[in-house]
Amino acid sequence: MLELEKNEYAQLMKDADLFFKKLFPICRSITGNGVRKTLSILQEIVGFDIKEIPSGTECYDWIIPDEWNIKDAYIKDPSGNRVVDFQRNNLHVVNYSSPLDKILSFKELQKHLYTLPDMPEAIPYRTSYYNKDWGFCLSQKQLDSMNKEIKYHVKIESTLKPGNLTYGESYIKGTSGKEYLISSYCCHPSLANDNLSGITLWAFLLKKLSKIKTFHSYRFILVPETIGAIAYLKSNEPLMKTVNGGFVITSVAGPGEFGYKSSFIKNHLIDRVVRKTFQELDEYYIEYPFHVTGSDETSYSSPFFRIPVGTICKDKYFEYPYYHTSLDNLEFISAKNLIKTLRIYLHAIEMLERNITFASMMPYCEAMLGKRGLYPKVGGHYKQNKPCEDAGINGHGYEIKPGVLIPEKEIDAMLWLMFYIDGKTSLFDISQKIDIPMKQLYEISQKLVQAGLIKPIT
Amino acid sequence: MLELEKNEYAQLMKDADLFFKKLFPICRSITGNGVRKTLSILQEIVGFDIKEIPSGTECYDWIIPDEWNIKDAYIKDPSGNRVVDFQRNNLHVVNYSSPLDKILSFKELQKHLYTLPDMPEAIPYRTSYYNKDWGFCLSQKQLDSMNKEIKYHVKIESTLKPGNLTYGESYIKGTSGKEYLISSYCCHPSLANDNLSGITLWAFLLKKLSKIKTFHSYRFILVPETIGAIAYLKSNEPLMKTVNGGFVITSVAGPGEFGYKSSFIKNHLIDRVVRKTFQELDEYYIEYPFHVTGSDETSYSSPFFRIPVGTICKDKYFEYPYYHTSLDNLEFISAKNLIKTLRIYLHAIEMLERNITFASMMPYCEAMLGKRGLYPKVGGHYKQNKPCEDAGINGHGYEIKPGVLIPEKEIDAMLWLMFYIDGKTSLFDISQKIDIPMKQLYEISQKLVQAGLIKPIT
Amino acid sequence: MLELEKNEYAQLMKDADLFFKKLFPICRSITGNGVRKTLSILQEIVGFDIKEIPSGTECYDWIIPDEWNIKDAYIKDPSGNRVVDFQRNNLHVVNYSSPLDKILSFKELQKHLYTLPDMPEAIPYRTSYYNKDWGFCLSQKQLDSMNKEIKYHVKIESTLKPGNLTYGESYIKGTSGKEYLISSYCCHPSLANDNLSGITLWAFLLKKLSKIKTFHSYRFILVPETIGAIAYLKSNEPLMKTVNGGFVITSVAGPGEFGYKSSFIKNHLIDRVVRKTFQELDEYYIEYPFHVTGSDETSYSSPFFRIPVGTICKDKYFEYPYYHTSLDNLEFISAKNLIKTLRIYLHAIEMLERNITFASMMPYCEAMLGKRGLYPKVGGHYKQNKPCEDAGINGHGYEIKPGVLIPEKEIDAMLWLMFYIDGKTSLFDISQKIDIPMKQLYEISQKLVQAGLIKPIT
Repeated sequence: MLELEKNEYAQLMKDADLFFKKLFPICRSITGNGVRKTLSILQEIVGFDIKEIPSGTECYDWIIPDEWNIKDAYIKDPSGNRVVDFQRNNLHVVNYSSPLDKILSFKELQKHLYTLPDMPEAIPYRTSYYNKDWGFCLSQKQLDSMNKEIKYHVKIESTLKPGNLTYGESYIKGTSGKEYLISSYCCHPSLANDNLSGITLWAFLLKKLSKIKTFHSYRFILVPETIGAIAYLKSNEPLMKTVNGGFVITSVAGPGEFGYKSSFIKNHLIDRVVRKTFQELDEYYIEYPFHVTGSDETSYSSPFFRIPVGTICKDKYFEYPYYHTSLDNLEFISAKNLIKTLRIYLHAIEMLERNITFASMMPYCEAMLGKRGLYPKVGGHYKQNKPCEDAGINGHGYEIKPGVLIPEKEIDAMLWLMFYIDGKTSLFDISQKIDIPMKQLYEISQKLVQAGLIKPIT
Repeated sequence: MLELEKNEYAQLMKDADLFFKKLFPICRSITGNGVRKTLSILQEIVGFDIKEIPSGTECYDWIIPDEWNIKDAYIKDPSGNRVVDFQRNNLHVVNYSSPLDKILSFKELQKHLYTLPDMPEAIPYRTSYYNKDWGFCLSQKQLDSMNKEIKYHVKIESTLKPGNLTYGESYIKGTSGKEYLISSYCCHPSLANDNLSGITLWAFLLKKLSKIKTFHSYRFILVPETIGAIAYLKSNEPLMKTVNGGFVITSVAGPGEFGYKSSFIKNHLIDRVVRKTFQELDEYYIEYPFHVTGSDETSYSSPFFRIPVGTICKDKYFEYPYYHTSLDNLEFISAKNLIKTLRIYLHAIEMLERNITFASMMPYCEAMLGKRGLYPKVGGHYKQNKPCEDAGINGHGYEIKPGVLIPEKEIDAMLWLMFYIDGKTSLFDISQKIDIPMKQLYEISQKLVQAGLIKPIT
Repeated sequence: MLELEKNEYAQLMKDADLFFKKLFPICRSITGNGVRKTLSILQEIVGFDIKEIPSGTECYDWIIPDEWNIKDAYIKDPSGNRVVDFQRNNLHVVNYSSPLDKILSFKELQKHLYTLPDMPEAIPYRTSYYNKDWGFCLSQKQLDSMNKEIKYHVKIESTLKPGNLTYGESYIKGTSGKEYLISSYCCHPSLANDNLSGITLWAFLLKKLSKIKTFHSYRFILVPETIGAIAYLKSNEPLMKTVNGGFVITSVAGPGEFGYKSSFIKNHLIDRVVRKTFQELDEYYIEYPFHVTGSDETSYSSPFFRIPVGTICKDKYFEYPYYHTSLDNLEFISAKNLIKTLRIYLHAIEMLERNITFASMMPYCEAMLGKRGLYPKVGGHYKQNKPCEDAGINGHGYEIKPGVLIPEKEIDAMLWLMFYIDGKTSLFDISQKIDIPMKQLYEISQKLVQAGLIKPIT
């Protein structure tokens, strides 16, 4: 239902490459035209609303800051050479730098320069959103080659004026009464894995889910990190109090291992679904425990809201050396890696979609499967403990990869379903108890629905 | 109290052999005269009621089928030789086969023949209770030797008519307000371990419990598998809703290891009692997790009833190669093995019987054991952590095998009892907390009762 | 706040030695002048009340016995030599021996003699509080050298008359509404580790806590073992029902390992605090599970009171070979060892003192630490997962030994505090969740209090 067809793969590969190229160069920030342009390009993938909140709006402990826009910035030597040039890489300017036009000695300038001595080729990424300041980021190599004896012309053509914080939103309405949050952040400038990859996957996921009739509701939001999530929570406080769980999508297209940062609850349905997804797809991943630093899960999971939020990554932020440097660029990520992570997200969400709770119409004893054509006609030879030696079959004899069950195992699963279904235990709970892939169990449950033995609870 | 005396052993051995021989040849089924005869022979061991439920009675998802009786059945070659003969082994006929009298070519006949190619000497056991059909079971060797070119006279002298489902029942009333179910099934024809052994042990157990004044109530039922348990539950629905736990007795006299299939709760009192029984008797056993296939525990533990039921076996069904074949015969089982399993059941039930919950008359502080003659007179040398190196003594220094405690350990146990007894923690709970045999702890508790320090809660 | 300053160490060493010498020779018992004298000497360390309960008072299952005092006791041979002499060691007389003045044959005398054949040089310690009797304890060597053919003059100049049971008490009132019990026992005669060391540490601890304004209340009591604790519970029943936890101080100055006998709850706050204390101070210790025999924890934790009580030892009673013998003398213990254990107790109590529960003033999202000067001004380089290779730094990067946090880790801890603080989770709970020393976490919490982000719940 949410699997990727072969021809979809090819199209997604092409799209990912295309949008990577379109979106990477834009200088995004927590407000301003960079975000507007980014969201409008993403609307070419899938429709969603773009909304704005004015500067000065109070959001709990925070205030939406003035809007920041930037045209140009440089450090020029007396010969007019741009020693550091925003046009070459938007990381060169500390994000949210105030406007400036001054002649400064190297010594005065130096207090405003940021480098990474351990990675001499890389430009670091720095911000100063809430402290009016300015600065330049450059590679250690650049810094070393600067003449320390001369004066420099330092110019930042930025504006900081009352404006808006811009964000994207889409709501997919389901019937289950449960709602999941799918959030990503769109404030990072030319950084590829963190988080150009995340916003692209967010749009692909929204497109895919928009095409089916979902069981649950999904709230997709694309906000500037921290302030955007906080502003969104403030604007939607009562609704957000009832969200059942969610994901923050970030850093999903690197060359390294899959990672999963679990929710603060550790064993919430969200966490169990992700772990089973990796198991069923037989993919290796590293599990990272919840940590209070990271991304917007901190706000979503804060004491008042306590939404359990997980994050599936490929090369998790903080963990890869190029993190928050100019080396996190289009060479570091790939469309292929992004699609791999998309597949994980789709499989996990498919599990959520199939996580129905049923009531039993025949809770009294063993149901008579025979009269419904669900049981072999000649009895006496049913023997469930025969060891199953075929590869790809787990201890219980269910095939691990989606496929067709051997008949005896299908009866087993039917009997287990009839045994566990009590109006409280969900299909996912049962799939974990008897270690069967969700897809197979779901299909078996549908046979029991058709036989009138169980019915979904709403 | 429920231990087997030496002379009892000898008598039981003789009885087991006698009843094995009397009962084995009878052609039992889920209804019919085979069951009636079986129950009436078992009444020679111990009295119990025989009851009947008419064909056509609706029982939840099931209907009591017509009663099946059989006089004779055979496959005759043109020379009049009985190639397959019900008189030689009642497994030869698919149980519940419809009447038949036909001349058939081998090819026509073949669709109704069942063999076990992997066990060429064995006749399989097959049934067709709810699907009107007929068939013969034979060894692969027999099949191979049949002439495929000739016609056979196939006759089944059976009847399928409205009648009754027959079962046995006995109720032992206790005073504790708790009730346990002891169930076995009497529908299998000439199969020894599964379940001639079970019905024999059921009768021995009933006889033994009938002789004492029990603390708990015990509901003994002997029913045809599946349909019988379901019919019983339907007829006794409100009573069965309040049963506290129980056992299904089956496959108890094989030469292999003891086995224990635990209840669906995994750690119910029933399960804990059985595990401690094996520990105290120092017997090896294999633990099988609850599985939804098996025997009548499925119906007893179904969502509406949820009675936790365990099964102690010797050569558990499904697990031994001769299971449901003609090789599960009187040579496979022995009276000695049956008595061994009986001893396990008796020890476990004795633990249940001793599982009293007490209230403390002196909950305030240490009770003064000295003035009641329960404490050594000269103090100062009491030292409980002395390692106990004697064999047969556990970490706490209690003797594992029933016997007399060393005095210091008896004081220990008294103090622990006084410490834990709070009107909620049962004697069995305490025996597990301090790892002492139930019998010893019970005896010590009686001293405290006599000293007026504790009293049973009812 | 409760750490020992350098000069305090020196003073405590001197005091410990002084009081060891003053107190060791006194013949204490569960009543009488030995206890009175002991308490009055301890009052030289710190002030506390001395109270008495009359003989004959009923205390639950017990009655305060007649008061016992002793002047002299001996076994004299016909030549007038004191073969066994109370003046040399008060252990020679079975504690609470009735008065006696008789000439006895060795054979008659022998029934009243106690030795330790396995430790031929040691005099055992024996009592007979509630069974009117008399006896002498002597070394096996002494016994061997006695002439078995002669008669002996046996004299015990003791009195058993209505009097009082004497105990010490002090109450330190805090503001938290929580109360902890600090109990020790003062009834053992010339035995050093058990329990001269305990009563000395009790007095030092009371002195130290008396000097600060405590958060919690502390009930210090010094009672004769068993009967004293029971009498105290009886006299203070409603108050004692509400005590939150406590310690029984005994055997704290031996040369062996630290030990911790945990509370009956196993994982009560008391237990967790002690374990974290040993971890933070990087001290090895042996954990002993709760056992119903031991000391007054049995009465404090009895069903009616259920006060969770732990015991921190150095050479735990029962465990060292000299236990309850004349070899548990001033050579066995040392002031240095006592101060080591005192430090453990002080650290544990300091943790209790810092265990505040806060409410959050900003539970909605991440608090804006930046505007309160609690966050670095230039963002983008915050990376919490950098492995910390420095020695003395735990997995989370918090320094294990008290000291100053590296700034990034301080922000981490602030964010965790803001994340977990919900009006229920206490500071100690959080310190365990994020594995940070309590002292550091407490200091950070105070910054958040000053910033108006959290406030203590009372």
